[in-house]
Amino acid sequence: MLEELKHDVCRANQALVRHGLVTLTFGNVSGIDAERLHVVIKPSGVPYAELQPAQMVVVDLSGTVVEGDLRPSTDTPTHLLLYQHFAQVGGITHVHSRFATMFAQARREISCLGTTHADHFHGSVPVTRPLSPAEVEHAYEANTARVIVERFAHLDPKVMPAVLVAGHGPFTWGRDAAASVVNAVALEVVAEMAFGTRVIDANAPDLEQHLLHKHHERKHGKDAYYGQDW
Amino acid sequence: MLEELKHDVCRANQALVRHGLVTLTFGNVSGIDAERLHVVIKPSGVPYAELQPAQMVVVDLSGTVVEGDLRPSTDTPTHLLLYQHFAQVGGITHVHSRFATMFAQARREISCLGTTHADHFHGSVPVTRPLSPAEVEHAYEANTARVIVERFAHLDPKVMPAVLVAGHGPFTWGRDAAASVVNAVALEVVAEMAFGTRVIDANAPDLEQHLLHKHHERKHGKDAYYGQDW
Amino acid sequence: MLEELKHDVCRANQALVRHGLVTLTFGNVSGIDAERLHVVIKPSGVPYAELQPAQMVVVDLSGTVVEGDLRPSTDTPTHLLLYQHFAQVGGITHVHSRFATMFAQARREISCLGTTHADHFHGSVPVTRPLSPAEVEHAYEANTARVIVERFAHLDPKVMPAVLVAGHGPFTWGRDAAASVVNAVALEVVAEMAFGTRVIDANAPDLEQHLLHKHHERKHGKDAYYGQDW
Amino acid sequence: MLEELKHDVCRANQALVRHGLVTLTFGNVSGIDAERLHVVIKPSGVPYAELQPAQMVVVDLSGTVVEGDLRPSTDTPTHLLLYQHFAQVGGITHVHSRFATMFAQARREISCLGTTHADHFHGSVPVTRPLSPAEVEHAYEANTARVIVERFAHLDPKVMPAVLVAGHGPFTWGRDAAASVVNAVALEVVAEMAFGTRVIDANAPDLEQHLLHKHHERKHGKDAYYGQDW
Repeated sequence: MLEELKHDVCRANQALVRHGLVTLTFGNVSGIDAERLHVVIKPSGVPYAELQPAQMVVVDLSGTVVEGDLRPSTDTPTHLLLYQHFAQVGGITHVHSRFATMFAQARREISCLGTTHADHFHGSVPVTRPLSPAEVEHAYEANTARVIVERFAHLDPKVMPAVLVAGHGPFTWGRDAAASVVNAVALEVVAEMAFGTRVIDANAPDLEQHLLHKHHERKHGKDAYYGQDW
Repeated sequence: MLEELKHDVCRANQALVRHGLVTLTFGNVSGIDAERLHVVIKPSGVPYAELQPAQMVVVDLSGTVVEGDLRPSTDTPTHLLLYQHFAQVGGITHVHSRFATMFAQARREISCLGTTHADHFHGSVPVTRPLSPAEVEHAYEANTARVIVERFAHLDPKVMPAVLVAGHGPFTWGRDAAASVVNAVALEVVAEMAFGTRVIDANAPDLEQHLLHKHHERKHGKDAYYGQDW
Repeated sequence: MLEELKHDVCRANQALVRHGLVTLTFGNVSGIDAERLHVVIKPSGVPYAELQPAQMVVVDLSGTVVEGDLRPSTDTPTHLLLYQHFAQVGGITHVHSRFATMFAQARREISCLGTTHADHFHGSVPVTRPLSPAEVEHAYEANTARVIVERFAHLDPKVMPAVLVAGHGPFTWGRDAAASVVNAVALEVVAEMAFGTRVIDANAPDLEQHLLHKHHERKHGKDAYYGQDW
Repeated sequence: MLEELKHDVCRANQALVRHGLVTLTFGNVSGIDAERLHVVIKPSGVPYAELQPAQMVVVDLSGTVVEGDLRPSTDTPTHLLLYQHFAQVGGITHVHSRFATMFAQARREISCLGTTHADHFHGSVPVTRPLSPAEVEHAYEANTARVIVERFAHLDPKVMPAVLVAGHGPFTWGRDAAASVVNAVALEVVAEMAFGTRVIDANAPDLEQHLLHKHHERKHGKDAYYGQDW
């Protein structure tokens, strides 16, 4: 079942390596089918170089494995709950990419300091609150999604397709698995440049609001004029 | 038309990847024909690995597409206006390369701290002023060129083939498309080394004027003795 | 003798290059046989690209070469003494990887700032005390192991498979040679992210104890649910 | 003439690229023949990928081209004077590698902070004084060698095979061209780790003298026991 989705999710996982976003096996990408009934996700702890579409695991939204011989990624409950709350999201990526993780560990938002950021993320990339001991003890991975959803109470996941989980690392999303990887790539470079900008000048100003808005609109707004009309 | 120029511009765009200057599709190179009537530029949002010379877009100086099936780079109006004001420039590169963009985001000039810098850029690499809300609202990309030209009121684009657009990133230029990429490569390494030098010593001195002048002259002056007489 | 172990140790040494952990010939991996009588180790000063399993050197625990035409790694006495004291260790890696070495040179522990760290190392990665002039003068390499063992008086090498030797660099270990390389890879990325986190915020907090414990247990505890049951 | 030396010098120049020590064409390696009458050096401004042994330029110690169709590296007079003063040196490398150049631009010695440094350089890597306007105006490249030689009045080039030219970059040397490249590789990694160590702790201590001496002796002393007796 879902052969095309398995293929896309497998390719998206492999793209993490090509983009330098993963070390060892720290990272996973998933995609949800059009009916939003089944999620296809990377098996846990399998090296990227060996990944085959047939190894992708199909789970339903309760987390039950519907197809696949391997155990799904440990982070599967986080992915599932995010799909349930973020209705327009078709793909999710979780990595421990270096610079985004540094900000997650420092528990600092990534301020929008330039147009590269504005092209992808509409404002500062938010950080979750830390999980309580009880939230870690039981249903830790589902609770990771809950603090993300809580943080997005007043944020639109469509214009802010990324979050930093405090002390952990980033999650990004998009219309499909490949788009969530593109946002993970963009987040990492934006994090690296924010890091360096603030080393040059700890008080470097945020991008002007009018410029943030302009860049986001020219790429994602209803009159977008960046890219091609494929 | 302009098949050779399309070939050169295509190759120059692909060189951005080889030199590590671009992430995703953030970057574009253009070239102008000898008559300075037509500009060949990368199509918008097309991955570099797939670029073919036949996909390059030909526009006239008003921005009208003269040949090509794809939409030209969003930054085309910036390129066009720069060609009109900088008469000796034959090629232009725009990237969001990491270290040059950090300085653009911090809105700090890149001081000339060593001979690597002096070999390519005669003095500090300048930063534009920020654009006003009105300049961003209407004709944003053309206004980006206008603030560059304004910044060069007392600078010679021939000896300073680079600028940092505040909150955005670098533009570089040269006698042709390939030369503008070489200057983008040089700018990035010079930016990285200036970044690190000032981490080691925040008060590291600028290169002595006599040494700046010497290095620039031995490579670019009328009695240049660096390189070969091809 | 020990052909399979030679093969594994040779591959593990070559993996150091693929993971970017070594420059020139600074690094070596060894493995011990099941009977804990013989250690297989890289020959000293041989380039990784040329390494062949047949070149691996077999030594007994006194350091006598039992098989092999080449001189074993200079650091062999350090490896041998660690095997004698850390009974569950089957493989040891020593590298001068950049970020781990920076912490070793700064003589600073690597604090546990995030879950990437907690997935591999249970708490701060410790630093040894400096060796005295007498310890350096005689049996320097064996004394390097002695200060490591001394530092582990109250630490369990199974949950803390890494140490930083002051002014020198890291040693990591694991159940076999390959596992010790995985820990060297994890240590380097954890060191890089700790470095960057503390640049963003010099007072970034350590990971909460409950989260440190959770991540370590889900991967290494008796009810581990990360990875596959191969 | 000197076909073998041309081959070795060509290979050594190409190794600069493989080791990530050069950007564009900033770097050159030379070697001197056994009689110390002729020096073989890279031609100026030729891309490394295209270098052929037959393109190497042979000059005598006065700088006269004895064989070769291309102009020798601009830095040839620096190499020639160093060979005349440093009698045991058989090969010289000049690069603008990033971290070594940052220290040269900051005009700061690279302190010996660890054993990686001690394995290659016996103490702090020195910096020259700046050249005066007159020294830059006439015979600039030869004067670059003169300030290096001046800086080595009380240093032994055999145990300190590297120098940082203030505001410029490093020169390294060795018994032949390949050995000078190895020292350039070692210098760059040592510079990067010194940079990071001092970011972690601005007051990180120099390596203890007894450890500096031990590491240098075990690799380079008369009772050296690192590497093989080839």
